Amino acid sequence: MLERSREITVEKRIVGKRVAHLVTAGDVVGIGTGSTIACAIEELGKMVESGLEILGVPTSYQSRFLAIRHGIPLTTLDENPSLDIAIDGADQVDAHFNAIKGGGAAHTLEKIVASSSKRFVIAVDEGKLVERLDHPVPIEVIPAALSIVIREVKSLGGRPTLRTALRKDGPVITDNGNFILDVDFGVIESPDVLSGELSSCVGVVEHGIFTDVGEVYVGKRDESVEVLKRD
Amino acid sequence: MLERSREITVEKRIVGKRVAHLVTAGDVVGIGTGSTIACAIEELGKMVESGLEILGVPTSYQSRFLAIRHGIPLTTLDENPSLDIAIDGADQVDAHFNAIKGGGAAHTLEKIVASSSKRFVIAVDEGKLVERLDHPVPIEVIPAALSIVIREVKSLGGRPTLRTALRKDGPVITDNGNFILDVDFGVIESPDVLSGELSSCVGVVEHGIFTDVGEVYVGKRDESVEVLKRD
Repeated sequence: MLERSREITVEKRIVGKRVAHLVTAGDVVGIGTGSTIACAIEELGKMVESGLEILGVPTSYQSRFLAIRHGIPLTTLDENPSLDIAIDGADQVDAHFNAIKGGGAAHTLEKIVASSSKRFVIAVDEGKLVERLDHPVPIEVIPAALSIVIREVKSLGGRPTLRTALRKDGPVITDNGNFILDVDFGVIESPDVLSGELSSCVGVVEHGIFTDVGEVYVGKRDESVEVLKRD
Repeated sequence: MLERSREITVEKRIVGKRVAHLVTAGDVVGIGTGSTIACAIEELGKMVESGLEILGVPTSYQSRFLAIRHGIPLTTLDENPSLDIAIDGADQVDAHFNAIKGGGAAHTLEKIVASSSKRFVIAVDEGKLVERLDHPVPIEVIPAALSIVIREVKSLGGRPTLRTALRKDGPVITDNGNFILDVDFGVIESPDVLSGELSSCVGVVEHGIFTDVGEVYVGKRDESVEVLKRD
């Protein structure tokens, strides 16, 4: 498990900026987490400064702080449980609109926000596109259930690694106070089947497989953006 | 803020092993966090395997997992609120038995455990000894109080930095679900005064200044251990 790449490449910048412009006046917007969405937040901030009226629902402390810094008015799911659009990044996206998220350990709230949104858009650089998902699946786990979740994911054929922190001793703790297991399943033949199996494990808060991605915007090295939409 | 050094040097190994042997039969032992104490835990495990009967109270997920791996029976402060001895590391120790802890983000529970113990022993390598404390002070902060704590520590002359994570997006989250502010006060003239001031800030869970250190064991590069005891 390497450090998460925070490098803002031209692909990330271009696609982040592009998905910001999917947001329209009056929208309540789910704001994802990560370096690509950081570019989108910056752009949304400029749009707000130019008069666009929106409300943002952040998915992490990171996106919350960034949104505040860029002047985006915020709200919560308690106040606004139905979002118009949610924009987010991903660690890997396949050709069938499945994605793996959670490298930033924020996928639980990201999934809650995505499922509360009429439109869910993922923005990635082209390096994240694959034929079939094979990225280790981040799973947020209740600390007291660590051993039983490890046993369960092994019985499902996974090889789990407790994500350890670098700027604190011991494991990474999520914004919700839980652990992250990165579980290597090799090539994932049926993301929707695995998704259901993982969701049914007691002690799993949420896993990083997203099977309901509606639209994927892909930033390319030639500075174009390809748009993939589910029929 | 660099990554925390996890390198096990000969000084850490020697002093860790030494303080493990301060533990005697029947003791309830507070088990600190960090690489030096990892060496102590390994040694305690060998002592338990040889028949020593003790109970450990870990101060973090890290020390908890290590203690379990090395076969040390565990208990809690709920069951055993009075400890016989607590052993721990530190980021910096001065000549007046003050210390700064919290590089591992575990200082809140470490302080609770230390204050519950008849005897509190710190084990460090000689690189941690200083004439006067000048290490940034880690402060555990309730997330909702971040802005007001930043304002307060600035008014006390500190320069705060929110500790950011490397293996998740956004801030480091402690085992208790809170943030860490690393606050640079330069040379700390009066650790006990600053300790009181920081403790009285609303939103501060606990800060990393320890003023009640009874004994300091110092591992040296020549493989000796120097013992410093308060009168």
